[in-house]
Amino acid sequence: MSGRTYLAGLIGTGIGPSLTPRLHEQEAAAEGIGYVYRTLDLDALGLVPEDVGDLVRYAGLLGFDALNITHPCKQLVLPHLDHLDDVVEQVGATNTVIFRDGKTWACNTDVTGFAEAMRRGLPDASLDLVVQLGAGGAGAAVGHALARSGAQALRIVDPDASRAEALADRLAGQFADVAVTAAAPQDLPRLLGEATGLVHCTPTGMAEHPGAPLDLDLLHPGLWVADIVYRPLLTALVAGARERGCRVLDGGGMALHQAADTYALVTGHEPDRDRMGAHFARLASR
Amino acid sequence: MSGRTYLAGLIGTGIGPSLTPRLHEQEAAAEGIGYVYRTLDLDALGLVPEDVGDLVRYAGLLGFDALNITHPCKQLVLPHLDHLDDVVEQVGATNTVIFRDGKTWACNTDVTGFAEAMRRGLPDASLDLVVQLGAGGAGAAVGHALARSGAQALRIVDPDASRAEALADRLAGQFADVAVTAAAPQDLPRLLGEATGLVHCTPTGMAEHPGAPLDLDLLHPGLWVADIVYRPLLTALVAGARERGCRVLDGGGMALHQAADTYALVTGHEPDRDRMGAHFARLASR
Repeated sequence: MSGRTYLAGLIGTGIGPSLTPRLHEQEAAAEGIGYVYRTLDLDALGLVPEDVGDLVRYAGLLGFDALNITHPCKQLVLPHLDHLDDVVEQVGATNTVIFRDGKTWACNTDVTGFAEAMRRGLPDASLDLVVQLGAGGAGAAVGHALARSGAQALRIVDPDASRAEALADRLAGQFADVAVTAAAPQDLPRLLGEATGLVHCTPTGMAEHPGAPLDLDLLHPGLWVADIVYRPLLTALVAGARERGCRVLDGGGMALHQAADTYALVTGHEPDRDRMGAHFARLASR
Repeated sequence: MSGRTYLAGLIGTGIGPSLTPRLHEQEAAAEGIGYVYRTLDLDALGLVPEDVGDLVRYAGLLGFDALNITHPCKQLVLPHLDHLDDVVEQVGATNTVIFRDGKTWACNTDVTGFAEAMRRGLPDASLDLVVQLGAGGAGAAVGHALARSGAQALRIVDPDASRAEALADRLAGQFADVAVTAAAPQDLPRLLGEATGLVHCTPTGMAEHPGAPLDLDLLHPGLWVADIVYRPLLTALVAGARERGCRVLDGGGMALHQAADTYALVTGHEPDRDRMGAHFARLASR
């Protein structure tokens, strides 16, 4: 090996179990590329979220090629960066900072990763009317991905009505061609009766938040269902949707393709996404 | 690959041409280990030597396993470290900082690397009376290595008499069994007539400082000669000593074995030193 090596990291809290570091390192190993990806958990390091600016600056000095940024720093980090791409400007959050020519460039592979997961996992899904559950940080990225992917109409549902309205208003302002409105959880029976698809973007279904995020009997075979929870892959929602005959995209797709998109940004070339998917399946099954 | 990956760096000035990063990365690649070694040149980064403490602290936070430290930070860094090993305490300088369990541990693989190079490259060299040219930072490490390797008598020669005396006094205080004294360059004809070996530790012979560090006609076949300059490997001293029938150790040995010793500290296992030597020869010949 005589080529260049790559150095990346993930900054956030509660990220010890993240599969992203191994996904990057295993794909690089399979390519014969030297690649180190470090998990930088703020709690474990005794740091606070506001330290993210200093961490980013020193990561640049110390030769990092990129940082993934996750909760609670995706917005906090923005004032410390040199360039924000269009998606980051629109979403107001970044999950990927690239160091190049002494500058920092913010991207958002949550957005591109979800879009890619949809494109590959549900290639002919109708986006005529999509119901999105959850208007938090992940919901903002997914909503943008849906709007950019050609959704005709989006209904943003969140128990926090002001949060749902804020995201719907922002998306409506940025995507004139997409009919985006907020709705309340009690509207779900009516909405899902009309919808072509359902996307779930709340923490419900994660190991720490078990259960289903809605009455599963509202699902019907005419609906595709996408979950973004991936630990575990088989959430109550994914299982319930499969049982009811829905076409289903589990949360592994977004997790995989955000990592693959970041890998492509770091190295400047496409990874083997099928191979990364096999790595992911192996890691996620442990 | 499912193993742990390693992250190291080199802090100093004028280190762009250093072969150490590639030596580490190529050995790791040959072992199938993910390993990134970054060159962190203070001048290129717009930093001053006094920034070394912050760099070390953030390197620890950002998941580095080790840092090599070179000119002008080998002493400056000491107050920022948690533990100094015996060799570092004695030499008063470190070239290797290991991060472990949230603490920093300082070692000196210049010392162990030179000793190993001597052991392998001149295995039965008599250390009865060794003349050492140069009492700077490299000279301090080499003098300690010679004393630890069983030298009976050491003569420290430097144009700066106070520097020669300071090093001789320190070594004499630390190694009661070794007869260490300072001497002046004009004593070289007499000293080399009696000596069993000569070690050269000044910059003369480097590409930027061409020439020989002494009158080569003072060399005789009864003398072994070790140079620590390794860019180029074939210095005027090495060439002149070979012509005059001396057994010769060029500067590649110390460069190689300090890297190999650091690699062993970083990874916790011995590298293949013959393979690293082959890498080194290939890199050094470019």
